[in-house]
Amino acid sequence: MKTDFVPITYFAVPLQKQLLENQENIRGKPYEDFFDPNLKIPDSAIQQVTRGPMDRRYVKTPSKSDISAFVKGEDVIQGSGYAMVDEALFYVQSRMLMPGITSEMMRWWFVWHQLEKERYTLWFPQAHIDNKVADPERLADTSLTFEERLYGNTNVAKEFIGPIAQEIAIHFDSPAALGADREILEQNGYYFSTSAWMSLTAAPETCMGLMFHLGRDTSKGFEFITQYWMGSHDELHRFPGGADAAAFLRSVGFETEALENLAFELSIHDLSEYYNLARILPKLYEKFAGN
Amino acid sequence: MKTDFVPITYFAVPLQKQLLENQENIRGKPYEDFFDPNLKIPDSAIQQVTRGPMDRRYVKTPSKSDISAFVKGEDVIQGSGYAMVDEALFYVQSRMLMPGITSEMMRWWFVWHQLEKERYTLWFPQAHIDNKVADPERLADTSLTFEERLYGNTNVAKEFIGPIAQEIAIHFDSPAALGADREILEQNGYYFSTSAWMSLTAAPETCMGLMFHLGRDTSKGFEFITQYWMGSHDELHRFPGGADAAAFLRSVGFETEALENLAFELSIHDLSEYYNLARILPKLYEKFAGN
Repeated sequence: MKTDFVPITYFAVPLQKQLLENQENIRGKPYEDFFDPNLKIPDSAIQQVTRGPMDRRYVKTPSKSDISAFVKGEDVIQGSGYAMVDEALFYVQSRMLMPGITSEMMRWWFVWHQLEKERYTLWFPQAHIDNKVADPERLADTSLTFEERLYGNTNVAKEFIGPIAQEIAIHFDSPAALGADREILEQNGYYFSTSAWMSLTAAPETCMGLMFHLGRDTSKGFEFITQYWMGSHDELHRFPGGADAAAFLRSVGFETEALENLAFELSIHDLSEYYNLARILPKLYEKFAGN
Repeated sequence: MKTDFVPITYFAVPLQKQLLENQENIRGKPYEDFFDPNLKIPDSAIQQVTRGPMDRRYVKTPSKSDISAFVKGEDVIQGSGYAMVDEALFYVQSRMLMPGITSEMMRWWFVWHQLEKERYTLWFPQAHIDNKVADPERLADTSLTFEERLYGNTNVAKEFIGPIAQEIAIHFDSPAALGADREILEQNGYYFSTSAWMSLTAAPETCMGLMFHLGRDTSKGFEFITQYWMGSHDELHRFPGGADAAAFLRSVGFETEALENLAFELSIHDLSEYYNLARILPKLYEKFAGN
Protein backbone atom coordinates (compact mmCIF):
# COMPACT_ATOMS: atom_id res chain seq x y z
CA MET A 1 0.00 0.00 0.00
CA LYS A 2 1.37 3.39 -1.00
CA THR A 3 1.65 5.95 1.77
CA ASP A 4 -0.13 9.20 0.97
CA PHE A 5 2.12 12.13 1.92
CA VAL A 6 0.72 15.64 2.38
CA PRO A 7 2.57 18.95 2.81
CA ILE A 8 2.75 20.47 6.29
CA THR A 9 0.49 23.53 6.20
CA TYR A 10 1.44 25.31 9.42
CA PHE A 11 4.62 26.91 10.68
CA ALA A 12 4.32 29.46 13.49
CA VAL A 13 5.78 32.88 12.69
CA PRO A 14 9.09 32.38 14.56
CA LEU A 15 9.68 29.20 12.50
CA GLN A 16 8.92 31.03 9.27
CA LYS A 17 11.56 33.60 10.18
CA GLN A 18 14.03 30.93 11.28
CA LEU A 19 13.62 29.31 7.87
CA LEU A 20 14.69 32.52 6.13
CA GLU A 21 17.72 32.79 8.42
CA ASN A 22 18.72 29.14 7.96
CA GLN A 23 18.31 29.49 4.19
CA GLU A 24 20.77 32.40 4.30
CA ASN A 25 23.28 30.54 6.49
CA ILE A 26 23.42 27.39 4.41
CA ARG A 27 24.37 29.20 1.20
CA GLY A 28 27.64 27.92 -0.21
CA LYS A 29 27.69 24.73 1.83
CA PRO A 30 28.35 21.65 -0.32
CA TYR A 31 25.05 20.15 0.89
CA GLU A 32 22.84 23.22 0.42
CA ASP A 33 20.77 21.48 -2.27
CA PHE A 34 19.42 19.16 0.41
CA PHE A 35 17.87 22.08 2.29
CA ASP A 36 14.21 21.79 1.29
CA PRO A 37 11.44 23.40 3.35
CA ASN A 38 8.64 21.51 1.57
CA LEU A 39 8.10 19.02 4.37
CA LYS A 40 5.60 16.21 3.90
CA ILE A 41 4.21 13.60 6.24
CA PRO A 42 1.71 10.77 5.83
CA ASP A 43 -1.93 11.84 5.82
CA SER A 44 -2.72 8.92 8.13
CA ALA A 45 -0.35 10.29 10.81
CA ILE A 46 -2.00 13.71 10.59
CA GLN A 47 -5.39 12.12 11.12
CA GLN A 48 -4.04 10.36 14.20
CA VAL A 49 -2.60 13.42 15.93
CA THR A 50 -5.22 16.07 15.08
CA ARG A 51 -8.33 14.40 16.49
CA GLY A 52 -7.51 14.77 20.17
CA PRO A 53 -5.18 12.79 22.45
CA MET A 54 -4.71 9.07 21.79
CA ASP A 55 -6.76 6.36 23.45
CA ARG A 56 -5.73 5.99 27.10
CA ARG A 57 -5.21 2.25 26.94
CA TYR A 58 -2.26 2.63 24.56
CA VAL A 59 -0.50 5.30 26.61
CA LYS A 60 2.78 4.00 28.00
CA THR A 61 4.61 5.13 31.12
CA PRO A 62 8.43 5.33 31.23
CA SER A 63 8.54 2.14 33.32
CA LYS A 64 10.82 -0.68 32.21
CA SER A 65 7.87 -3.00 31.66
CA ASP A 66 6.01 -0.49 29.48
CA ILE A 67 9.15 0.11 27.41
CA SER A 68 9.46 -3.64 26.86
CA ALA A 69 5.80 -3.88 25.89
CA PHE A 70 6.27 -1.16 23.28
CA VAL A 71 9.32 -2.88 21.83
CA LYS A 72 7.37 -6.13 21.61
CA GLY A 73 4.42 -4.31 20.04
CA GLU A 74 2.05 -5.22 22.88
CA ASP A 75 -0.99 -2.96 23.27
CA VAL A 76 0.33 -0.35 20.90
CA ILE A 77 -1.26 1.67 18.15
CA GLN A 78 0.50 1.67 14.83
CA GLY A 79 1.59 5.13 13.80
CA SER A 80 1.43 8.22 15.95
CA GLY A 81 -0.24 9.66 19.00
CA TYR A 82 0.12 11.93 21.99
CA ALA A 83 -1.53 12.12 25.40
CA MET A 84 -0.98 13.01 29.03
CA VAL A 85 0.12 10.03 31.18
CA ASP A 86 -1.08 11.96 34.23
CA GLU A 87 -1.30 15.67 34.93
CA ALA A 88 2.49 16.07 35.16
CA LEU A 89 3.84 13.93 32.32
CA PHE A 90 3.11 13.59 28.62
CA TYR A 91 3.67 10.73 26.18
CA VAL A 92 4.32 10.93 22.43
CA GLN A 93 4.95 8.02 20.09
CA SER A 94 5.48 7.27 16.43
CA ARG A 95 6.08 4.13 14.44
CA MET A 96 7.55 4.98 11.06
CA LEU A 97 8.64 2.93 8.06
CA MET A 98 11.43 4.42 5.94
CA PRO A 99 11.93 2.65 2.61
CA GLY A 100 15.44 3.00 1.21
CA ILE A 101 16.98 3.77 4.62
CA THR A 102 19.31 1.51 6.59
CA SER A 103 20.58 1.65 10.15
CA GLU A 104 24.04 2.25 8.70
CA MET A 105 22.83 5.49 7.10
CA MET A 106 21.21 6.56 10.35
CA ARG A 107 24.42 5.95 12.30
CA TRP A 108 26.32 8.01 9.78
CA TRP A 109 23.74 10.84 10.05
CA PHE A 110 23.89 10.95 13.83
CA VAL A 111 27.61 11.59 13.73
CA TRP A 112 27.78 13.78 10.63
CA HIS A 113 24.99 16.26 11.41
CA GLN A 114 26.21 17.05 14.91
CA LEU A 115 29.52 18.42 13.68
CA GLU A 116 28.14 21.54 11.94
CA LYS A 117 24.99 23.45 12.81
CA GLU A 118 23.98 24.03 9.16
CA ARG A 119 23.85 20.26 8.70
CA TYR A 120 21.46 20.14 11.62
CA THR A 121 19.16 22.65 9.85
CA LEU A 122 18.79 20.27 6.86
CA TRP A 123 16.83 18.02 9.15
CA PHE A 124 14.04 20.51 9.91
CA PRO A 125 14.66 23.77 8.03
CA GLN A 126 12.02 25.75 9.95
CA ALA A 127 12.63 24.50 13.49
CA HIS A 128 16.32 23.73 13.95
CA ILE A 129 18.52 26.55 15.16
CA ASP A 130 21.78 25.26 16.56
CA ASN A 131 23.39 22.24 18.14
CA LYS A 132 26.59 21.41 19.96
CA VAL A 133 28.13 18.19 21.10
CA ALA A 134 30.12 17.90 24.34
CA ASP A 135 33.10 16.09 22.77
CA PRO A 136 33.22 16.55 18.97
CA GLU A 137 36.58 14.76 18.73
CA ARG A 138 35.22 11.62 20.29
CA LEU A 139 32.13 11.83 18.09
CA ALA A 140 34.35 12.05 14.98
CA ASP A 141 36.76 9.29 16.05
CA THR A 142 36.33 6.51 13.48
CA SER A 143 38.41 4.10 15.56
CA LEU A 144 35.48 3.86 17.98
CA THR A 145 32.10 2.16 17.51
CA PHE A 146 29.03 4.30 16.92
CA GLU A 147 27.89 3.62 20.45
CA GLU A 148 31.27 4.59 21.94
CA ARG A 149 31.18 7.85 20.02
CA LEU A 150 27.59 8.80 20.88
CA TYR A 151 26.74 7.48 24.33
CA GLY A 152 27.61 9.79 27.19
CA ASN A 153 28.49 12.50 24.65
CA THR A 154 25.74 15.01 25.35
CA ASN A 155 24.21 16.96 22.50
CA VAL A 156 22.68 20.37 23.20
CA ALA A 157 20.01 21.09 20.59
CA LYS A 158 18.42 24.49 20.19
CA GLU A 159 15.17 24.11 18.30
CA PHE A 160 11.57 25.23 18.11
CA ILE A 161 9.08 22.70 19.42
CA GLY A 162 5.97 24.63 18.64
CA PRO A 163 6.39 28.41 18.62
CA ILE A 164 8.88 28.48 21.51
CA ALA A 165 12.60 27.80 21.13
CA GLN A 166 13.91 25.18 23.57
CA GLU A 167 17.49 24.37 24.48
CA ILE A 168 17.57 20.69 25.27
CA ALA A 169 20.49 18.62 26.55
CA ILE A 170 20.18 15.15 25.03
CA HIS A 171 22.14 12.67 27.12
CA PHE A 172 22.53 9.67 24.80
CA ASP A 173 23.03 6.33 26.48
CA SER A 174 22.56 2.65 25.78
CA PRO A 175 18.90 1.59 25.76
CA ALA A 176 19.65 -0.97 28.48
CA ALA A 177 21.05 1.75 30.75
CA LEU A 178 17.90 3.79 30.09
CA GLY A 179 15.52 0.98 30.98
CA ALA A 180 15.01 -1.28 27.97
CA ASP A 181 15.54 -5.01 28.22
CA ARG A 182 18.55 -5.95 26.09
CA GLU A 183 17.26 -9.44 25.32
CA ILE A 184 13.89 -8.18 24.16
CA LEU A 185 15.59 -5.57 21.96
CA GLU A 186 17.74 -8.23 20.32
CA GLN A 187 14.87 -10.70 19.92
CA ASN A 188 13.00 -7.99 18.02
CA GLY A 189 15.99 -6.88 15.96
CA TYR A 190 16.36 -3.40 17.42
CA TYR A 191 20.13 -2.95 17.21
CA PHE A 192 19.97 0.76 16.40
CA SER A 193 19.37 3.24 19.20
CA THR A 194 19.66 6.98 19.67
CA SER A 195 17.83 6.93 22.99
CA ALA A 196 18.55 9.44 25.73
CA TRP A 197 17.40 11.12 28.88
CA MET A 198 16.86 14.85 28.59
CA SER A 199 17.22 18.03 30.57
CA LEU A 200 16.81 21.70 29.73
CA THR A 201 19.92 23.86 29.74
CA ALA A 202 18.04 26.04 32.25
CA ALA A 203 18.33 23.08 34.68
CA PRO A 204 20.97 20.80 33.15
CA GLU A 205 21.13 18.38 36.08
CA THR A 206 17.38 17.83 36.29
CA CYS A 207 16.04 14.99 34.15
CA MET A 208 12.76 16.14 32.66
CA GLY A 209 12.35 13.69 29.86
CA LEU A 210 13.18 10.38 28.31
CA MET A 211 13.22 9.35 24.69
CA PHE A 212 13.48 5.93 23.15
CA HIS A 213 14.47 5.99 19.50
CA LEU A 214 14.94 2.46 18.25
CA GLY A 215 15.38 1.12 14.77
CA ARG A 216 15.68 -2.13 12.87
CA ASP A 217 16.42 -3.06 9.27
CA THR A 218 13.66 -4.93 7.48
CA SER A 219 13.04 -6.00 3.90
CA LYS A 220 10.67 -3.03 3.52
CA GLY A 221 13.10 -0.48 4.86
CA PHE A 222 14.15 0.96 8.20
CA GLU A 223 11.54 0.62 10.92
CA PHE A 224 11.89 3.40 13.42
CA ILE A 225 9.92 3.61 16.65
CA THR A 226 10.02 6.68 18.85
CA GLN A 227 8.70 7.36 22.33
CA TYR A 228 9.00 10.56 24.34
CA TRP A 229 8.00 11.44 27.86
CA MET A 230 8.36 14.94 29.25
CA GLY A 231 7.46 16.40 32.63
CA SER A 232 7.85 14.73 36.01
CA HIS A 233 7.07 11.15 37.07
CA ASP A 234 8.22 8.59 39.63
CA GLU A 235 9.66 6.43 36.85
CA LEU A 236 11.99 9.28 35.88
CA HIS A 237 13.53 9.34 39.38
CA ARG A 238 16.02 6.71 38.19
CA PHE A 239 17.76 9.42 36.14
CA PRO A 240 19.96 12.28 37.45
CA GLY A 241 17.83 14.95 39.13
CA GLY A 242 14.59 13.21 38.12
CA ALA A 243 13.14 13.76 41.57
CA ASP A 244 13.63 17.55 41.22
CA ALA A 245 11.66 17.91 37.97
CA ALA A 246 8.25 18.48 39.56
CA ALA A 247 9.48 21.39 41.69
CA PHE A 248 11.37 22.95 38.77
CA LEU A 249 8.38 22.76 36.40
CA ARG A 250 6.09 24.27 39.04
CA SER A 251 8.59 27.09 39.63
CA VAL A 252 8.50 28.09 35.97
CA GLY A 253 4.71 27.66 35.75
CA PHE A 254 4.86 24.80 33.27
CA GLU A 255 1.60 23.04 34.07
CA THR A 256 -0.69 20.42 32.52
CA GLU A 257 -2.16 22.57 29.73
CA ALA A 258 1.27 23.71 28.52
CA LEU A 259 2.56 20.13 28.70
CA GLU A 260 -0.34 18.81 26.64
CA ASN A 261 0.16 21.51 23.99
CA LEU A 262 3.86 20.66 23.91
CA ALA A 263 3.01 16.97 23.48
CA PHE A 264 1.07 17.71 20.29
CA GLU A 265 3.79 20.06 19.05
CA LEU A 266 6.46 17.43 19.69
CA SER A 267 4.36 14.86 17.89
CA ILE A 268 4.18 17.04 14.75
CA HIS A 269 7.86 17.95 15.17
CA ASP A 270 8.95 14.32 15.40
CA LEU A 271 6.94 13.33 12.31
CA SER A 272 8.20 16.36 10.37
CA GLU A 273 11.88 15.84 11.06
CA TYR A 274 12.02 12.07 10.66
CA TYR A 275 9.99 11.86 7.46
CA ASN A 276 12.09 14.71 6.08
CA LEU A 277 15.28 12.91 7.08
CA ALA A 278 13.99 9.74 5.40
CA ARG A 279 13.45 11.76 2.22
CA ILE A 280 16.92 13.33 2.02
CA LEU A 281 19.14 10.75 3.71
CA PRO A 282 19.77 8.18 0.94
CA LYS A 283 21.23 10.75 -1.48
CA LEU A 284 22.98 12.69 1.28
CA TYR A 285 24.64 9.49 2.45
CA GLU A 286 25.64 8.56 -1.08
CA LYS A 287 27.24 11.95 -1.63
CA PHE A 288 28.90 12.68 1.72
CA ALA A 289 29.51 9.42 3.56
CA GLY A 290 32.67 8.83 1.55
CA ASN A 291 32.24 5.09 1.19
CA MET B 1 -5.80 25.83 -14.25
CA LYS B 2 -6.90 23.43 -11.55
CA THR B 3 -6.32 24.55 -7.97
CA ASP B 4 -4.36 22.05 -5.93
CA PHE B 5 -6.02 21.64 -2.51
CA VAL B 6 -4.16 20.12 0.44
CA PRO B 7 -5.47 19.04 3.86
CA ILE B 8 -4.79 21.29 6.84
CA THR B 9 -2.23 19.43 8.97
CA TYR B 10 -2.31 21.39 12.21
CA PHE B 11 -4.96 22.06 14.82
CA ALA B 12 -3.81 23.16 18.25
CA VAL B 13 -4.99 20.93 21.12
CA PRO B 14 -7.89 23.19 22.23
CA LEU B 15 -9.26 23.08 18.66
CA GLN B 16 -8.96 19.30 18.54
CA LYS B 17 -11.04 19.10 21.71
CA GLN B 18 -13.53 21.66 20.44
CA LEU B 19 -14.01 19.48 17.35
CA LEU B 20 -15.02 16.52 19.49
CA GLU B 21 -17.46 18.72 21.43
CA ASN B 22 -18.96 20.25 18.28
CA GLN B 23 -19.28 16.80 16.72
CA GLU B 24 -21.30 15.72 19.75
CA ASN B 25 -23.52 18.81 19.70
CA ILE B 26 -24.44 18.61 16.05
CA ARG B 27 -25.80 15.07 16.25
CA GLY B 28 -29.41 14.86 15.16
CA LYS B 29 -29.44 18.23 13.41
CA PRO B 30 -30.86 17.98 9.86
CA TYR B 31 -27.60 19.40 8.49
CA GLU B 32 -25.17 17.20 10.47
CA ASP B 33 -23.90 15.52 7.28
CA PHE B 34 -22.33 18.83 6.29
CA PHE B 35 -20.09 18.81 9.38
CA ASP B 36 -16.76 17.68 7.92
CA PRO B 37 -13.46 18.32 9.71
CA ASN B 38 -11.33 17.41 6.67
CA LEU B 39 -10.53 20.99 5.75
CA LYS B 40 -8.52 21.70 2.63
CA ILE B 41 -7.01 24.86 1.22
CA PRO B 42 -5.00 25.63 -1.91
CA ASP B 43 -1.34 24.67 -1.72
CA SER B 44 -0.45 28.02 -3.30
CA ALA B 45 -2.06 29.90 -0.39
CA ILE B 46 -0.09 27.81 2.12
CA GLN B 47 3.12 28.67 0.31
CA GLN B 48 2.22 32.36 0.53
CA VAL B 49 1.51 32.47 4.27
CA THR B 50 4.21 30.11 5.60
CA ARG B 51 7.33 31.80 4.21
CA GLY B 52 7.31 34.87 6.42
CA PRO B 53 5.27 38.10 6.28
CA MET B 54 4.23 39.44 2.88
CA ASP B 55 6.24 41.99 0.92
CA ARG B 56 5.93 45.43 2.56
CA ARG B 57 4.95 47.23 -0.63
CA TYR B 58 1.65 45.32 -0.84
CA VAL B 59 0.66 45.94 2.77
CA LYS B 60 -2.41 48.17 2.96
CA THR B 61 -3.42 50.50 5.80
CA PRO B 62 -7.11 50.92 6.79
CA SER B 63 -7.17 54.33 5.05
CA LYS B 64 -9.94 55.04 2.58
CA SER B 65 -7.45 55.40 -0.27
CA ASP B 66 -5.80 52.05 0.47
CA ILE B 67 -9.19 50.33 0.65
CA SER B 68 -10.04 51.79 -2.78
CA ALA B 69 -6.70 50.67 -4.17
CA PHE B 70 -7.35 47.11 -2.97
CA VAL B 71 -10.83 47.06 -4.53
CA LYS B 72 -9.36 48.30 -7.81
CA GLY B 73 -6.59 45.71 -7.59
CA GLU B 74 -3.82 48.32 -7.51
CA ASP B 75 -0.52 47.19 -5.99
CA VAL B 76 -1.97 43.97 -4.62
CA ILE B 77 -0.74 40.42 -4.50
CA GLN B 78 -3.11 37.78 -5.72
CA GLY B 79 -3.97 35.30 -3.02
CA SER B 80 -3.01 35.58 0.60
CA GLY B 81 -0.61 37.27 2.95
CA TYR B 82 -0.10 38.74 6.40
CA ALA B 83 2.22 41.39 7.83
CA MET B 84 2.51 44.11 10.44
CA VAL B 85 1.52 47.58 9.11
CA ASP B 86 3.51 49.09 11.96
CA GLU B 87 4.33 47.82 15.44
CA ALA B 88 0.74 48.25 16.66
CA LEU B 89 -1.41 47.03 13.74
CA PHE B 90 -1.48 43.94 11.55
CA TYR B 91 -2.85 43.34 8.07
CA VAL B 92 -4.22 40.11 6.59
CA GLN B 93 -5.63 39.63 3.12
CA SER B 94 -6.97 36.92 0.86
CA ARG B 95 -8.31 36.87 -2.66
CA MET B 96 -10.32 33.70 -3.24
CA LEU B 97 -12.23 32.28 -6.19
CA MET B 98 -15.19 30.04 -5.36
CA PRO B 99 -16.54 28.11 -8.35
CA GLY B 100 -20.21 27.14 -8.00
CA ILE B 101 -20.93 29.86 -5.42
CA THR B 102 -23.07 32.95 -5.96
CA SER B 103 -23.56 36.09 -3.89
CA GLU B 104 -27.17 34.94 -3.37
CA MET B 105 -25.92 31.79 -1.59
CA MET B 106 -23.57 33.87 0.52
CA ARG B 107 -26.37 36.22 1.59
CA TRP B 108 -28.48 33.25 2.55
CA TRP B 109 -25.59 31.76 4.57
CA PHE B 110 -24.95 34.97 6.50
CA VAL B 111 -28.52 35.00 7.73
CA TRP B 112 -29.06 31.27 8.18
CA HIS B 113 -25.90 30.36 10.11
CA GLN B 114 -26.28 33.11 12.69
CA LEU B 115 -29.60 31.76 13.96
CA GLU B 116 -28.22 28.55 15.54
CA LYS B 117 -24.76 27.97 16.95
CA GLU B 118 -24.44 24.43 15.52
CA ARG B 119 -24.85 25.89 12.04
CA TYR B 120 -21.96 28.20 12.83
CA THR B 121 -19.78 25.16 13.69
CA LEU B 122 -20.30 23.74 10.16
CA TRP B 123 -18.21 26.62 8.91
CA PHE B 124 -15.05 25.69 10.86
CA PRO B 125 -15.63 22.52 12.89
CA GLN B 126 -12.44 22.88 14.96
CA ALA B 127 -12.48 26.62 15.69
CA HIS B 128 -16.06 27.82 15.97
CA ILE B 129 -17.63 27.70 19.41
CA ASP B 130 -20.68 29.93 19.62
CA ASN B 131 -22.28 32.97 18.09
CA LYS B 132 -25.13 35.31 18.89
CA VAL B 133 -26.79 38.08 16.97
CA ALA B 134 -28.10 41.23 18.66
CA ASP B 135 -31.51 41.17 16.98
CA PRO B 136 -32.35 37.69 15.58
CA GLU B 137 -35.87 38.77 14.62
CA ARG B 138 -34.60 41.51 12.39
CA LEU B 139 -32.02 39.15 10.91
CA ALA B 140 -34.78 36.65 10.07
CA ASP B 141 -37.23 39.22 8.70
CA THR B 142 -37.65 38.37 5.02
CA SER B 143 -39.54 41.60 4.33
CA LEU B 144 -36.22 43.44 4.69
CA THR B 145 -33.24 43.49 2.34
CA PHE B 146 -30.12 41.54 3.28
CA GLU B 147 -28.40 44.79 4.13
CA GLU B 148 -31.26 45.97 6.35
CA ARG B 149 -31.19 42.68 8.21
CA LEU B 150 -27.39 42.54 8.72
CA TYR B 151 -26.04 46.06 9.05
CA GLY B 152 -26.05 47.47 12.55
CA ASN B 153 -27.08 44.02 13.85
CA THR B 154 -23.98 43.05 15.79
CA ASN B 155 -22.84 39.43 15.81
CA VAL B 156 -20.80 38.17 18.75
CA ALA B 157 -18.66 35.26 17.60
CA LYS B 158 -16.77 33.02 20.00
CA GLU B 159 -14.03 31.23 18.14
CA PHE B 160 -10.43 30.09 18.28
CA ILE B 161 -8.06 32.19 16.23
CA GLY B 162 -4.95 30.20 16.87
CA PRO B 163 -4.92 28.35 20.20
CA ILE B 164 -6.76 31.08 22.13
CA ALA B 165 -10.53 31.52 22.11
CA GLN B 166 -11.62 35.06 21.30
CA GLU B 167 -15.03 36.66 21.75
CA ILE B 168 -15.39 39.19 18.98
CA ALA B 169 -18.22 41.67 18.39
CA ILE B 170 -18.61 42.06 14.63
CA HIS B 171 -20.40 45.32 13.88
CA PHE B 172 -21.58 44.87 10.29
CA ASP B 173 -22.14 48.05 8.34
CA SER B 174 -22.26 49.23 4.74
CA PRO B 175 -18.84 49.32 3.09
CA ALA B 176 -19.33 53.01 2.33
CA ALA B 177 -19.91 53.77 6.03
CA LEU B 178 -16.72 51.80 6.83
CA GLY B 179 -14.55 53.72 4.36
CA ALA B 180 -14.94 52.19 0.89
CA ASP B 181 -15.85 54.34 -2.10
CA ARG B 182 -19.32 53.33 -3.29
CA GLU B 183 -18.63 54.28 -6.90
CA ILE B 184 -15.43 52.25 -7.06
CA LEU B 185 -17.21 49.25 -5.52
CA GLU B 186 -19.95 49.44 -8.14
CA GLN B 187 -17.54 50.00 -11.03
CA ASN B 188 -15.77 46.80 -9.96
CA GLY B 189 -18.95 44.81 -9.40
CA TYR B 190 -18.62 44.35 -5.63
CA TYR B 191 -22.27 44.39 -4.60
CA PHE B 192 -21.84 41.84 -1.84
CA SER B 193 -20.40 42.92 1.50
CA THR B 194 -20.15 41.48 4.99
CA SER B 195 -17.72 44.14 6.15
CA ALA B 196 -17.57 45.33 9.74
CA TRP B 197 -15.63 47.06 12.44
CA MET B 198 -14.72 44.88 15.38
CA SER B 199 -14.29 45.02 19.12
CA LEU B 200 -13.62 42.43 21.80
CA THR B 201 -16.41 41.72 24.29
CA ALA B 202 -13.82 42.57 26.96
CA ALA B 203 -13.96 46.16 25.63
CA PRO B 204 -17.09 46.28 23.47
CA GLU B 205 -16.97 50.04 22.81
CA THR B 206 -13.33 50.07 21.69
CA CYS B 207 -12.80 49.49 17.97
CA MET B 208 -9.75 47.24 17.58
CA GLY B 209 -10.20 46.03 14.08
CA LEU B 210 -11.73 46.46 10.68
CA MET B 211 -12.60 43.86 8.09
CA PHE B 212 -13.58 44.28 4.49
CA HIS B 213 -15.25 41.23 3.01
CA LEU B 214 -16.38 41.99 -0.51
CA GLY B 215 -17.66 39.71 -3.22
CA ARG B 216 -18.71 39.75 -6.84
CA ASP B 217 -20.29 37.22 -9.18
CA THR B 218 -18.16 36.29 -12.19
CA SER B 219 -18.40 33.69 -14.94
CA LYS B 220 -15.82 31.61 -13.05
CA GLY B 221 -17.60 31.76 -9.71
CA PHE B 222 -17.80 34.02 -6.71
CA GLU B 223 -14.75 36.23 -6.23
CA PHE B 224 -14.27 37.02 -2.59
CA ILE B 225 -11.68 39.46 -1.28
CA THR B 226 -10.97 39.82 2.41
CA GLN B 227 -8.91 42.30 4.36
CA TYR B 228 -8.43 42.47 8.12
CA TRP B 229 -6.65 44.93 10.34
CA MET B 230 -6.30 44.42 14.07
CA GLY B 231 -4.57 46.51 16.73
CA SER B 232 -4.49 50.28 16.99
CA HIS B 233 -3.94 52.87 14.26
CA ASP B 234 -4.84 56.51 13.50
CA GLU B 235 -7.05 55.35 10.63
CA LEU B 236 -9.18 53.36 13.07
CA HIS B 237 -9.97 56.50 15.09
CA ARG B 238 -12.94 57.09 12.78
CA PHE B 239 -14.72 54.17 14.48
CA PRO B 240 -16.26 54.11 18.00
CA GLY B 241 -13.54 54.02 20.65
CA GLY B 242 -10.79 53.62 18.03
CA ALA B 243 -8.64 56.15 19.84
CA ASP B 244 -8.74 54.02 23.02
CA ALA B 245 -7.43 50.82 21.41
CA ALA B 246 -3.71 51.51 21.96
CA ALA B 247 -4.14 52.01 25.70
CA PHE B 248 -6.37 48.94 26.05
CA LEU B 249 -3.97 46.67 24.17
CA ARG B 250 -1.03 47.93 26.25
CA SER B 251 -3.00 47.31 29.45
CA VAL B 252 -3.52 43.64 28.57
CA GLY B 253 0.07 43.24 27.32
CA PHE B 254 -0.91 42.54 23.73
CA GLU B 255 2.21 43.73 21.94
CA THR B 256 3.81 43.44 18.51
CA GLU B 257 4.92 39.81 18.73
CA ALA B 258 1.50 38.59 19.83
CA LEU B 259 -0.15 40.68 17.11
CA GLU B 260 2.09 39.23 14.42
CA ASN B 261 1.40 35.67 15.58
CA LEU B 262 -2.32 36.44 15.55
CA ALA B 263 -2.01 37.83 12.01
CA PHE B 264 -0.68 34.49 10.75
CA GLU B 265 -3.29 32.57 12.72
CA LEU B 266 -6.07 34.75 11.31
CA SER B 267 -4.68 34.24 7.84
CA ILE B 268 -4.89 30.45 8.19
CA HIS B 269 -8.27 30.77 9.91
CA ASP B 270 -9.71 32.91 7.11
CA LEU B 271 -8.49 30.51 4.41
CA SER B 272 -9.74 27.48 6.34
CA GLU B 273 -13.24 28.76 6.95
CA TYR B 274 -13.90 30.32 3.55
CA TYR B 275 -12.62 27.45 1.47
CA ASN B 276 -14.59 25.08 3.67
CA LEU B 277 -17.71 27.20 3.24
CA ALA B 278 -17.15 27.21 -0.53
CA ARG B 279 -17.04 23.43 -0.41
CA ILE B 280 -20.27 22.85 1.53
CA LEU B 281 -22.39 25.86 0.58
CA PRO B 282 -23.86 24.83 -2.82
CA LYS B 283 -25.45 21.64 -1.46
CA LEU B 284 -26.37 23.23 1.87
CA TYR B 285 -28.14 26.03 0.01
CA GLU B 286 -29.93 23.58 -2.25
CA LYS B 287 -31.19 21.59 0.70
CA PHE B 288 -32.04 24.29 3.26
CA ALA B 289 -32.65 27.57 1.47
CA GLY B 290 -36.19 26.51 0.62
CA ASN B 291 -36.30 28.01 -2.85
